[in-house]
Amino acid sequence: MINMDKLFEAVAAKGHVCVGLDTCADYVPQKERSKAANDAEAVLAFNKALIDATYDTAACFKVQIAYYEEMGINGLKAYAETLKYIRTKGCISIADIKRGDIADTASRYVKAHFCGDFEADFVTISPYMGMDSVEPWLKEAQKSGKGAFVLMRTSNPGMKDFQYVETKDGSRLYHVVGGKMSETAEQNMGKNGYGIFGIVVGCTEKDEAAQIRQKYSNLFFLIPGYGAQGGAAKDVALLLNKGNGGVVNASRSIITAWKTEALADCDNEAAAQAARRAAIIMRDDIHGAIL
Amino acid sequence: MINMDKLFEAVAAKGHVCVGLDTCADYVPQKERSKAANDAEAVLAFNKALIDATYDTAACFKVQIAYYEEMGINGLKAYAETLKYIRTKGCISIADIKRGDIADTASRYVKAHFCGDFEADFVTISPYMGMDSVEPWLKEAQKSGKGAFVLMRTSNPGMKDFQYVETKDGSRLYHVVGGKMSETAEQNMGKNGYGIFGIVVGCTEKDEAAQIRQKYSNLFFLIPGYGAQGGAAKDVALLLNKGNGGVVNASRSIITAWKTEALADCDNEAAAQAARRAAIIMRDDIHGAIL
Repeated sequence: MINMDKLFEAVAAKGHVCVGLDTCADYVPQKERSKAANDAEAVLAFNKALIDATYDTAACFKVQIAYYEEMGINGLKAYAETLKYIRTKGCISIADIKRGDIADTASRYVKAHFCGDFEADFVTISPYMGMDSVEPWLKEAQKSGKGAFVLMRTSNPGMKDFQYVETKDGSRLYHVVGGKMSETAEQNMGKNGYGIFGIVVGCTEKDEAAQIRQKYSNLFFLIPGYGAQGGAAKDVALLLNKGNGGVVNASRSIITAWKTEALADCDNEAAAQAARRAAIIMRDDIHGAIL
Repeated sequence: MINMDKLFEAVAAKGHVCVGLDTCADYVPQKERSKAANDAEAVLAFNKALIDATYDTAACFKVQIAYYEEMGINGLKAYAETLKYIRTKGCISIADIKRGDIADTASRYVKAHFCGDFEADFVTISPYMGMDSVEPWLKEAQKSGKGAFVLMRTSNPGMKDFQYVETKDGSRLYHVVGGKMSETAEQNMGKNGYGIFGIVVGCTEKDEAAQIRQKYSNLFFLIPGYGAQGGAAKDVALLLNKGNGGVVNASRSIITAWKTEALADCDNEAAAQAARRAAIIMRDDIHGAIL
């Protein structure tokens, strides 16, 4: 079974929450951080507790590599171990790497992130360089069943700078990207009606949400922007398709829930239980909003 | 002095060649590869020989991180050591990482690649997510003098998919990116007339080259596409400005010159001398074409 079908089934079974492990040392409870050999080990131990506490309430985990690159070699060891731990638990990982490079270089990234130390089930891809920066990933995915989400319309304020550029025929750049991905999906279809590669669609601009869901009915969505960035469950609901077809990322609101709950002296396990409560609230919030 | 001014002066002193250390184990002479503890160590030793042999004929070195990520943790150690070795030699490094993410995540990448294990003098940035994915780099560069090249018009065939999308006002997407970077340069100018951040402009599409050079006169160019990809010295010359204003990357044609010269049984030093000869030929080829 291809990973996109596995993700579809995980959503059906466990809801739409994608727990974002954008973990830096400041997010680790102080007493655990001071116990660890270094920040990267503190992050890894906290990640394991978070995964243990949330894996039955989350469809998948998204690991943002920037937070690990920031810690250098040790950080990337923690990144690799985090992905491995997600796999050990039988869960689905999305490596949020936003790589995008020309064909030969892209094929190196493919080897880096679809196998070896940094193996993940899904990656994210930045499309600026064109479809030859996507194709090497696709070629490998056709063999292994791996998946990817290509940036289409993101959730940050700056997305309007280029993604919203109006084209000659009255459309926008992001639709040019979406159109290419939709064509690709038709040639690479999973059994649940979604292509093996999906797209990133933020839930911060609700005006176009229904139109986007309809236009890209064959694409599964990775949805950032919920919570802190301003997206609400009802905005997310507009991007779903019969209650499936998307996972919704939340990072800080889940993994630092122990701070929100003012559990200053907690250990990893208590902090992870706070994360679990936050993930369940989010899951139920989205379920309650489904149209 | 900011790094972009250092790069300008390196070009004036040593020519336009940027040696691309897109090094994989297959590019290392066989007898050296079999001696090394692993592929990453073989690559590192070869890189050091290449740097020793070419640093006085090249303006800078570009290290393509994908080739190192492919080898996992060991590969990234070799990447870090390669950057460090370039620095030890007093040379300029460009980390070809093409990162691009929203503000908070971008600031993690900034820490990862402007300091710590992976510190480089310049990075490359992918602009798809918008200017808020560029600004955290710029903010840090204003303090430290570091530099960056933002992808504008690349040299791969797929660039036409999105970079060439025609806009409502008859322009193209890449000019929207270039325009933003040109505005940014005006606010962050070095002493040689170039902004602290430049752009990536391939030399494979010569028809627009002169127009691009004129339009972005305040931007320094990182120029891929020379040699194997089809760009000639005369195409490069159109992208230069009074003989400066750009560095021209070549990777495989330099670092695998020992294969072209059929030195099958050579060691790293002999292979690096072949690289030196190739770099000098390229340097003189470009010098000869300058308008």
